[in-house]
Amino acid sequence: MKKTLTSILLSGLMLTMMPTLQAGATTTTDTKDAAAKTPKSKNVIVLIGDGMGPAQVSAARTFSRHFLNKPHLELDQYYVGQATTFAERGEDETGVVSGEVTDSSSSGTAIATGHKTYNAAVSVSNEEVSKPFASIIEAAEQAGKSSGLVTTARITHATPAVFASHVRSRDNESAIASQYLMDQKIEVLFGGGKQNFVSKQDNGKRTDKTIIPDFEAKGYKVVYDKQGLQALDAAAGKALGLFGNSHVSYVLDRTDKSPSLADMTKKAIEILTTNDKGFTMMVEGGRIDHASHANDFPSVIQEMLDFDAAVKVAMDFAKKDGNTSVVITADHETGGLSLSRDTIYELNVNNWNRPKKSSEGIGPKLKAAKTAEEVKAIVADNTGFDDLTDEEVKFILAGDGSSFVQEGAYNAVIAKRMLVGWSGHGHSAVDVGVWAYGPIAELVKGQVDNSDIAKAVAKVANLDLDAATAELQAKYLYPRFKVTREGNVLYPTRELAATFGIDVKWDETTRTVNLSKGVNKASVNVETSAVSLKGAQSGFKVNVDNSTLYLSLDVFNQLTGKTMKWDPLSERIVLK
Amino acid sequence: MKKTLTSILLSGLMLTMMPTLQAGATTTTDTKDAAAKTPKSKNVIVLIGDGMGPAQVSAARTFSRHFLNKPHLELDQYYVGQATTFAERGEDETGVVSGEVTDSSSSGTAIATGHKTYNAAVSVSNEEVSKPFASIIEAAEQAGKSSGLVTTARITHATPAVFASHVRSRDNESAIASQYLMDQKIEVLFGGGKQNFVSKQDNGKRTDKTIIPDFEAKGYKVVYDKQGLQALDAAAGKALGLFGNSHVSYVLDRTDKSPSLADMTKKAIEILTTNDKGFTMMVEGGRIDHASHANDFPSVIQEMLDFDAAVKVAMDFAKKDGNTSVVITADHETGGLSLSRDTIYELNVNNWNRPKKSSEGIGPKLKAAKTAEEVKAIVADNTGFDDLTDEEVKFILAGDGSSFVQEGAYNAVIAKRMLVGWSGHGHSAVDVGVWAYGPIAELVKGQVDNSDIAKAVAKVANLDLDAATAELQAKYLYPRFKVTREGNVLYPTRELAATFGIDVKWDETTRTVNLSKGVNKASVNVETSAVSLKGAQSGFKVNVDNSTLYLSLDVFNQLTGKTMKWDPLSERIVLK
Repeated sequence: MKKTLTSILLSGLMLTMMPTLQAGATTTTDTKDAAAKTPKSKNVIVLIGDGMGPAQVSAARTFSRHFLNKPHLELDQYYVGQATTFAERGEDETGVVSGEVTDSSSSGTAIATGHKTYNAAVSVSNEEVSKPFASIIEAAEQAGKSSGLVTTARITHATPAVFASHVRSRDNESAIASQYLMDQKIEVLFGGGKQNFVSKQDNGKRTDKTIIPDFEAKGYKVVYDKQGLQALDAAAGKALGLFGNSHVSYVLDRTDKSPSLADMTKKAIEILTTNDKGFTMMVEGGRIDHASHANDFPSVIQEMLDFDAAVKVAMDFAKKDGNTSVVITADHETGGLSLSRDTIYELNVNNWNRPKKSSEGIGPKLKAAKTAEEVKAIVADNTGFDDLTDEEVKFILAGDGSSFVQEGAYNAVIAKRMLVGWSGHGHSAVDVGVWAYGPIAELVKGQVDNSDIAKAVAKVANLDLDAATAELQAKYLYPRFKVTREGNVLYPTRELAATFGIDVKWDETTRTVNLSKGVNKASVNVETSAVSLKGAQSGFKVNVDNSTLYLSLDVFNQLTGKTMKWDPLSERIVLK
Repeated sequence: MKKTLTSILLSGLMLTMMPTLQAGATTTTDTKDAAAKTPKSKNVIVLIGDGMGPAQVSAARTFSRHFLNKPHLELDQYYVGQATTFAERGEDETGVVSGEVTDSSSSGTAIATGHKTYNAAVSVSNEEVSKPFASIIEAAEQAGKSSGLVTTARITHATPAVFASHVRSRDNESAIASQYLMDQKIEVLFGGGKQNFVSKQDNGKRTDKTIIPDFEAKGYKVVYDKQGLQALDAAAGKALGLFGNSHVSYVLDRTDKSPSLADMTKKAIEILTTNDKGFTMMVEGGRIDHASHANDFPSVIQEMLDFDAAVKVAMDFAKKDGNTSVVITADHETGGLSLSRDTIYELNVNNWNRPKKSSEGIGPKLKAAKTAEEVKAIVADNTGFDDLTDEEVKFILAGDGSSFVQEGAYNAVIAKRMLVGWSGHGHSAVDVGVWAYGPIAELVKGQVDNSDIAKAVAKVANLDLDAATAELQAKYLYPRFKVTREGNVLYPTRELAATFGIDVKWDETTRTVNLSKGVNKASVNVETSAVSLKGAQSGFKVNVDNSTLYLSLDVFNQLTGKTMKWDPLSERIVLK
């Protein structure tokens, strides 16, 4: 998304014609007109099976039919349509990083806010100077409702994050945790990810400080295991549950201290229903995706069933409540799973329930194994497969060439015996299912796009996403930026100037970029890096990198008359 | 499905308690009760995308968005649900041949008749002595409606076959063609497959004779190319179009003589609408499956778009007509297609429209190529890819180890450049989409099974599938059988006896099987093969093979007092 200085200046005239702060607020009229006619729901529950593509669903149902004497998943009775998931195109110095195949943050942003964006974006737009998009959780809080985020992944992972934070990069999980604390009013936060709430000194990942006491100070009851979860009083008001340093354990690896997704969902509903104005909640089966990334098919099945049990909790509540809409979807498929392989017309379903632990659970043992005998013993112990070929053992010892190494190779060996295929360790672009209950069903049926989910939730719960977005966009901007060796934060001139309606002109003779907004003028000599402001030389920082001119925020403050500040944790400009 | 003599005799008592000829007729009451409440359609069009799994659909839409400036397929606006496709379990001497992963005949039987069966079965039940199941086409003809079968595959291929013929094995395509002629009243038959209508002497595949004159004698106008098709008068009444010796050419390989699926569908509707009582038609995009088997991704896209154009023809007619239901589904996914591979978050969509010919089209050239230069030239000429590695060239020269040989290897090389994955050359068990228009939509929405499609068609068109099935089952039986070296056709004793309510007892002392039905008795000495009938020795043929006793039809005729005959072409017993 980087542009050269030449292209900045050639297109200078166009810059002032570009839409600026209003860019995020679209489709307002349509939404509002139709909203009047749609039956409403006081509460909305959005469930997301992360990585839950069509084959993951079919596989779980087949398992259920064979081993659980249940021919159908809970999900099945609510199937209404399917959704496209593609991301917006994005490029950086390394090439295309975003397009047909989405990631969880891009697809999650669409589901949470109704807007497409680039991969890695957490509810911000696909621009050089990104703008925040409000989520259905944020709009619900503005409407006086309660809200909750529940997941088996880290609570700061992409899917929950897009519902209650705004950053350019999903990797900035410490900022996401801080935004939950500082910017949001979410009542319930249940998931893994303690590490992003705890400082490095306390064995966490934060460079600043442990923020759990701050949550407690804001009235959150904080719990760390299933027993703590169950002991939470419905009248707790606010609760933060951190059931793992990173993600919550896989179903196959859980101890009696690990809550299931259904356990978390049930408790969240108990707490959230104490608000008479209703609630909006997102529940994520976060580890369907992780198991699919690892190509750990038996764990995919178990995580699917864990998710399906949470669906039942949500549906049982919705039916009893009578004023709740539920919508279920996936953000994308993961792994390119296929239910058959090698031109064999069968699945070895009888083998699907063999593994005792997830591949992650036996991963360290596999990694430590040095001999063929050790590998054979580990695999036989976990799966009962005691017929590994020499070639398979060698493959496991060497790893599969991916970052999953021995675990990846083990899963490839297992997949062959279960007769399922994987095309890689990444995501894929197949459409995902949509399931729904209540008035929302009518709005998300048929062939939809993932961004239609947020619009439907807003419609059915009478939430004003556009107003919430406008409020956010008046507060924050998320520009690309660079930090110089001296620690100065600088911003690309063209893009930020366009955002603020600053005119940019290039003077070839003097090798000077001339900036003006009304009577305020500045000029930057790109050869000497001298910044002249309102006719006088300033000490403001300048950098030219790869033909792009970077300036400090001071220059823009001077030109616009604003007092904008940089928030280094969330990597955003605070406009006021 | 073969049982031993011991198991026959041990379970002798149970045999008389088994349901016999009525087995096929189930769910009668429910269907009829609900039928009264369902709005009706005079006409029904069933469209089947053979092998059209979720990824095939997503891929075609992505292509359409990129290259055709159409963000949606015609299909998309009619999406209502998805269907499970699994077959019934079947085993033979080689092991499991049928189960979770269906073939086109098993899934087609479910879609056409509402009954599950084993892979390879063409609208007959999954039993040692199979019974025919009537299809919606047969029930429509009984109701005085017209009917049509339209496909880009051979017209005798599994998917059209299940709608208008009954055989134990889909490979028996000559019998299927003969049944279209002798047993059916279908007005329109458009597809490929001339070879099964023409004798070996005339370069066809039939061992008996060329049957095209017989079709003409029954009033069929017979045409062989696009021009012939278009010249057909709507008042033709009956038409047989054979647009290829085997399948109709792939889109990428078509000449101006090859009709598209839309061309065929349009003409079929013209002819069928001349019947005031309405019509039932099946339209198959038969080569989505073939391209997927070959892993020829660019052809999959083109065949998908060819199918989608036929969908538009059907929908345009249905909307104009106002008395037509349309339902669209797939029989299964083929190839284990995934839209991404090798952990790369993108699809190389820009490459998807490169190939000029299908892989089948350049297959002979690839097979004949002897040098690396030849392979490089063929691939560069067809795709513009002139950067094949030595390894890739070697792989193409050697073939991919499947029956697709060089073509398979070429497609694997191409798939990598398009960033899509395949898990094999067979089918897979992922759920397939369901699309619908008209009153039928309400009956097939949500999560359904493929067998629900036939039930929905029957309901909406007021067809009595059970009555049509009862009529067929009173006429034909499809037993397993064996032909001895001397050319005698013999049947497994236990299964046929059970079918006719004949009591079977084993006398260990005399090594004799005793059969009785009322006063009629027979005994067979398994050591001497002597058959005593009504007390006297008979010359009837006997065979013991792998502990199973086989008897000639004469024995059963004598015991039952019937005069049943063997139809060697369709491999069935004609009951009366």
